[in-house]
Amino acid sequence: MLTLYGDLDSGNVYKVRLILARLGIAYRRVDTTQNRGEPQSAAFRAINPIGKIPAVVFDDGRMLSESGALLFYFAQDTALFPDERWDQANVLRWMFFEQYSHEPYIAVNRHLLLHLGAAERTEMAARIADNHVRGNAALAVMEQHLARHDWLAAGRSTIADIALYAYTHSAADGGFDLSRYPAVGRWLDRVRAEPGHIGQFDEAAVEAVRWPG
Amino acid sequence: MLTLYGDLDSGNVYKVRLILARLGIAYRRVDTTQNRGEPQSAAFRAINPIGKIPAVVFDDGRMLSESGALLFYFAQDTALFPDERWDQANVLRWMFFEQYSHEPYIAVNRHLLLHLGAAERTEMAARIADNHVRGNAALAVMEQHLARHDWLAAGRSTIADIALYAYTHSAADGGFDLSRYPAVGRWLDRVRAEPGHIGQFDEAAVEAVRWPG
Repeated sequence: MLTLYGDLDSGNVYKVRLILARLGIAYRRVDTTQNRGEPQSAAFRAINPIGKIPAVVFDDGRMLSESGALLFYFAQDTALFPDERWDQANVLRWMFFEQYSHEPYIAVNRHLLLHLGAAERTEMAARIADNHVRGNAALAVMEQHLARHDWLAAGRSTIADIALYAYTHSAADGGFDLSRYPAVGRWLDRVRAEPGHIGQFDEAAVEAVRWPG
Repeated sequence: MLTLYGDLDSGNVYKVRLILARLGIAYRRVDTTQNRGEPQSAAFRAINPIGKIPAVVFDDGRMLSESGALLFYFAQDTALFPDERWDQANVLRWMFFEQYSHEPYIAVNRHLLLHLGAAERTEMAARIADNHVRGNAALAVMEQHLARHDWLAAGRSTIADIALYAYTHSAADGGFDLSRYPAVGRWLDRVRAEPGHIGQFDEAAVEAVRWPG
């Protein structure tokens, strides 16, 4: 049985939990938490030298990290990854967009608003305001696309949707008003209606232990 | 003939120019420049709604953006992308690492040090210092891997190496001391020695016109 390192609060970990749930793949989870600095520890870097969650260790000892690479790996030969090269490239286009132009603003403001004290938040005010502008720009790009398409890429539900769902569905935690993006809202509902979908804090049937496991 | 939108200064555009040169694919370039704000213009967003370079428009009018997606697309059925699912996932692992944990610090400090005035640079001092720490962490991850492997993934030269070369080779522009990373230095030499490699500001045989083209 494979082991997933990461906590429930991380949207990047949630992406991996979502695809494993959607595909019915059993796993155990070691609750490795960014908020405690655990991914940066020497013990964790011996597993994933990049020092970040999520990381997956397979039965044969091989390790894979980066949520996008994990989504790609598990989606091969399933309906969540298309067959055509053009469609595949467009799936990855949205996944790189997520990591470069969406997550650094929407996920980071969620983290800052949920976990910083008032004093730190004041100190970070300019950064939070800048992230707010850039995060809204990312949501506007999604809105424009989803006003004309049911799914992000390839004309169907793919790992691009899983990748973007993870931090878009909780964007309100970071101060983003999703009511401004009605097509995004309808798309979130479509993703939630997919067979096997789980909520971010729902992990019935997964054995979870605290780091270091 | 395909059209590449982007400028010579952008490492993300350089990745696409590198793979096109390596594969001998002819193109024209429209010099669309971040420093003039051109990618954010309405005219450019009509081409790429994400408002970023690089973007490629093919003869049939289709557009693809995101350097990672473009590398993936052009590398299909070439030696630059491996056949095995595990190897492919590891290529993408390094490419997502680049966009999430390397480029935002190394490329951004290069931009800030090359293009900001002294007053703006003082205002951004804390951000530059934080980027310096995080960028060095990314280079240390590469050093650790490249001390034991000639290439980043799949045991051979792939698009992961092109993706990481683009901003690593110019990291000194951002205040990073590459002499601290000797294995990275030897890997940079290996990438430079690959057939078809071009320098970042070398574009013999490419027709380039100013935006809007």
